[in-house]
Amino acid sequence: MSQFWSSIVNTLTPYVPGEQPKISNLIKLNTNENPYGPSPKVLEAIKAHTDESLRLYPDPNADEIKDAISAYFTAKGTPVQRDQVFVGNGSDEVLAHTFQALLKQDEPILFPDISYSFYPVYCGLYQVEYKNIPLTDTFEINPKDYRQSNGGIIFPNPNAPTGRLLALEAVEDILKNNSKSVVVVDEAYIDFGGQSAVSLVNQYNNLLVIQTLSKSRSLAGIRLGYAIGHPALIEGLERVKNSFNSYPIDKLAIKATVASFADEVYFEQTCARIVRSRDLLSEQLTAFGFEVIPSSANFVFAKHPEHNAEALALALRDRSIIVRYFNKPNIDQHLRISIGTEDECQALIQALREILTPS
Amino acid sequence: MSQFWSSIVNTLTPYVPGEQPKISNLIKLNTNENPYGPSPKVLEAIKAHTDESLRLYPDPNADEIKDAISAYFTAKGTPVQRDQVFVGNGSDEVLAHTFQALLKQDEPILFPDISYSFYPVYCGLYQVEYKNIPLTDTFEINPKDYRQSNGGIIFPNPNAPTGRLLALEAVEDILKNNSKSVVVVDEAYIDFGGQSAVSLVNQYNNLLVIQTLSKSRSLAGIRLGYAIGHPALIEGLERVKNSFNSYPIDKLAIKATVASFADEVYFEQTCARIVRSRDLLSEQLTAFGFEVIPSSANFVFAKHPEHNAEALALALRDRSIIVRYFNKPNIDQHLRISIGTEDECQALIQALREILTPS
Repeated sequence: MSQFWSSIVNTLTPYVPGEQPKISNLIKLNTNENPYGPSPKVLEAIKAHTDESLRLYPDPNADEIKDAISAYFTAKGTPVQRDQVFVGNGSDEVLAHTFQALLKQDEPILFPDISYSFYPVYCGLYQVEYKNIPLTDTFEINPKDYRQSNGGIIFPNPNAPTGRLLALEAVEDILKNNSKSVVVVDEAYIDFGGQSAVSLVNQYNNLLVIQTLSKSRSLAGIRLGYAIGHPALIEGLERVKNSFNSYPIDKLAIKATVASFADEVYFEQTCARIVRSRDLLSEQLTAFGFEVIPSSANFVFAKHPEHNAEALALALRDRSIIVRYFNKPNIDQHLRISIGTEDECQALIQALREILTPS
Repeated sequence: MSQFWSSIVNTLTPYVPGEQPKISNLIKLNTNENPYGPSPKVLEAIKAHTDESLRLYPDPNADEIKDAISAYFTAKGTPVQRDQVFVGNGSDEVLAHTFQALLKQDEPILFPDISYSFYPVYCGLYQVEYKNIPLTDTFEINPKDYRQSNGGIIFPNPNAPTGRLLALEAVEDILKNNSKSVVVVDEAYIDFGGQSAVSLVNQYNNLLVIQTLSKSRSLAGIRLGYAIGHPALIEGLERVKNSFNSYPIDKLAIKATVASFADEVYFEQTCARIVRSRDLLSEQLTAFGFEVIPSSANFVFAKHPEHNAEALALALRDRSIIVRYFNKPNIDQHLRISIGTEDECQALIQALREILTPS
């Protein structure tokens, strides 16, 4: 506390991200990063633009990115125009602006009680009232629970940290029954097995879909997220962004993003490889007695009925493997394990075999 | 306007940055960029880290940058600890968090009527009340005008768009007479001739100094700004930042910044070269009849008693030279001209000679 702080600062409970350890030789399965690097073409594009032009400001609107995203989704069958795309410094910044520009309303917004733990933090920052909607006993979102008065709705799909997917028909049910509210679908993990709600943006003017380059496109280190929706929603975000920071996307991030969307083959191969590893790891964990929630993401969420989750996380850490443990109601017996390379997954299985089988 | 916007969105008047034209062969003297590229060592550092590790999130605290800045100022004679440094995505983001975390108080904040035009925009975004303090007739900040009740004080030094420096003793006068308010000194241009208030951070717990790599360090394209002050002020900023975006600084920006602070020789040579060009250009403009405000920045602010400023800007543009014109009270007869290379400055002088001397 300080006499110099604005009153809001005293009320904040900041978000705590997963650890980024500074020691090497760890198997890092705690922050859902992609185990494979970005496309070699992305690295080439960054190097090709690392020159004296970095003295200049980037395009404040990052139109090159907007055009690449627009072309990408249009080629996939959903016409998306430049003015339907908003870009930010990681999807966390896009989410922050979304809370301030679209989700701060007279009525409380709704989101699942188990979901991305940054949502209540944004509510604290912008003084947005919210109501948590419990997941079902099987950790599912039930669209019927979202048929109630609200100032907006947001949920990750697939959900985090559960990994469970909500089918597109269920997303559409929520959109139809909340035509006066903005419905934000936070699709950080959609490329690992889900059907994106981007296909619905031209039908529902209350839909905002948020995606990121941090997971499926292996660019967490470059900070790029985006939102797709009706031009009026995008304009609301732009107005807040242009009152906050004119140039959030640096010149190299612009070139990296454009190159990433241009290399579809690499993207699809990498995603498919992670999906194969995830499905194999799920089988192996199940064979060890874990209860594994069916995952459509690049992580699995699992509990063992006979082993304390925190103790398991610590035992793995002793073997140089970091997974994510949440000391929170309802999920404090689960571990969230990011999908590593094939070798990393097998090292995890080997470590668990040692831990679970007392010698 | 949209039914889906938060009420604040309707009230915003977003900032309009200087134009970033997409055509080449222009002499771009409108956004105060450095005419010389970044240190070659910065470019090498970026390329050396453009690898598969971009799949990983950056350090959310960017401690490498904090340590580099801490070491830099400590070597210059002012001991600065890691917890006295805050970093953000350009100084605009640092300013935004400063308005929310430190300048939103019960009483209005004070800033000069002619200063960085983003300040009133932040006030709109965070609903901060403010009072404009007029500059003197010679466009100077008079510290005595800041001896009145306030919720905080902010000013650029050197001021923008005037380029005028406030002497360090005058800054200290403002600090001493406002010990219950945060005083923010926005030093985007300090390296072109001013004495930084960083030397005062260990004496005044109400001082926050903000600097950027966009001007003197030729890295506008990489987006890096920082603040230095008492650990309590920095903690206030960190609490807001960690409620907004965990990872605003990407991996390559971290490496670029560290490399920039390591190459003092290049930095000093570049600044000295710009100062020489500025002083020569000021003389030449004066010889043409311009009234040039003494500048301590990398731009000059000048008016011609016989020529309309907007008409001059348009005539320069016809000759492929872009300067900044502000259609605002008191300064609508001035042009702000960024210092280019020696050749660019001479091209400007040649163009003005043509414009001012009818054939």
